[in-house]
Amino acid sequence: MPKLVLIRHGQSDWNEKNLFTGWVDVKLSETGRKEAKRAGELIKEAGIKGDILHTSLLSRAIQTADIALEEADQLWLPVKRSWRLNERHYGDLQGKNKAETLEQYGKEKFQTWRRSFDVPPPPISPDNKYSQVGERRYADLDPAVVPHTESLKLVIDRLIPYWQDSIAADLLEGKVVIVAAHGNSLRALVKHLDNISDEEIAGLNIPTGIPLVYELDDNLKPTKPAYYLDPEAAAAGAAAVAAQGSKK
Amino acid sequence: MPKLVLIRHGQSDWNEKNLFTGWVDVKLSETGRKEAKRAGELIKEAGIKGDILHTSLLSRAIQTADIALEEADQLWLPVKRSWRLNERHYGDLQGKNKAETLEQYGKEKFQTWRRSFDVPPPPISPDNKYSQVGERRYADLDPAVVPHTESLKLVIDRLIPYWQDSIAADLLEGKVVIVAAHGNSLRALVKHLDNISDEEIAGLNIPTGIPLVYELDDNLKPTKPAYYLDPEAAAAGAAAVAAQGSKK
Repeated sequence: MPKLVLIRHGQSDWNEKNLFTGWVDVKLSETGRKEAKRAGELIKEAGIKGDILHTSLLSRAIQTADIALEEADQLWLPVKRSWRLNERHYGDLQGKNKAETLEQYGKEKFQTWRRSFDVPPPPISPDNKYSQVGERRYADLDPAVVPHTESLKLVIDRLIPYWQDSIAADLLEGKVVIVAAHGNSLRALVKHLDNISDEEIAGLNIPTGIPLVYELDDNLKPTKPAYYLDPEAAAAGAAAVAAQGSKK
Repeated sequence: MPKLVLIRHGQSDWNEKNLFTGWVDVKLSETGRKEAKRAGELIKEAGIKGDILHTSLLSRAIQTADIALEEADQLWLPVKRSWRLNERHYGDLQGKNKAETLEQYGKEKFQTWRRSFDVPPPPISPDNKYSQVGERRYADLDPAVVPHTESLKLVIDRLIPYWQDSIAADLLEGKVVIVAAHGNSLRALVKHLDNISDEEIAGLNIPTGIPLVYELDDNLKPTKPAYYLDPEAAAAGAAAVAAQGSKK
């Protein structure tokens, strides 16, 4: 039976500093490493045996997978990486302090950029040091696809082809697929899998470091509601993410 | 210009305990992690920009690559893994203490198993807890290829097809290829690249944690002698490996 295990990376150095990150390649903080280790322990305790790993091209998701799979004794899994699993590109907000941005632009714009479905933040200039234009890891891509900013809708648009061509293909072979990625690329995937409306997705918060498991039928429809491997910690984590969104 | 960067993993928990390891999936010790970090620093200092990573299916090589590439800011590289890059299978010696084995079998047999070209140690029983028969990571392979013991010659026999089909193919695309593997799989590769005789290969010791770089022409022949990124440390490391071989 196809099984999909989603892991959102934990705290990065910039989460700690309250900066917008997006596609900037920031590494995990010590707390983030501990979250990844906990994810691996949960996978091991649940007896989940992965067949293949998918990650974004960003270090913090890759580190999370590496640490979790080391803990779960599954480092040997074959790996596929794609820019399509990257975090939402935060446009000109990348590298900016969240509190200062809130002050500068006001609560309405700030909340719109963070939580609206289809309003992207202002685009980043290619000269900005936090732009990814010209970065070596994207050198093989059509330059037109390296974003200057993204809404959640744009994340979905670029994620779904990867779901269809790669993740779904692995699942249809009956594999247990582990995906290590980001808050918004995983929200995009969950929206697709659970058929969540454009309006409702704003309220969905995926906690960090706690594997979320989908058991799927042969049409890749969930056979039961997805579940977290540590439901109590997941509820607390989602509440913390939601609180962060409303406070700042 | 194709470039090949070979990294031998550093100390594992069993090196530390003086046990034969082979295909047993032992993790890096703290010293081994430091060696991997140093390898990454050397790659970064040398300005080497990898295009693709190849690893064995054993954790200690994968950990070495993960730690080194994290240090070198190249975690995003595409990854290929193969059992053909695994360490030599040490047969019935796997899990045994080296000093006790020397005492039990005498110096001549011990040295033959360690350093002869084509005499494998006694085969391991599939019931031995250190046998890899039935292990999940090899489940997709023809059961006939999971070894019960190997000589260096047998390692070469199973490694060369992977060189030809996968590593060489990447190099011929002009890529910079990083390979994280083991003492004997890397000796097999070096023997092939430098055309070393069956007799002379016994004297070749590859130090741990110091990247060895081959610059190759379009026929995948070295354009100059391969070089270590830290030649002094490499000389000291090779001497240490050689001394270990003669002392025990």
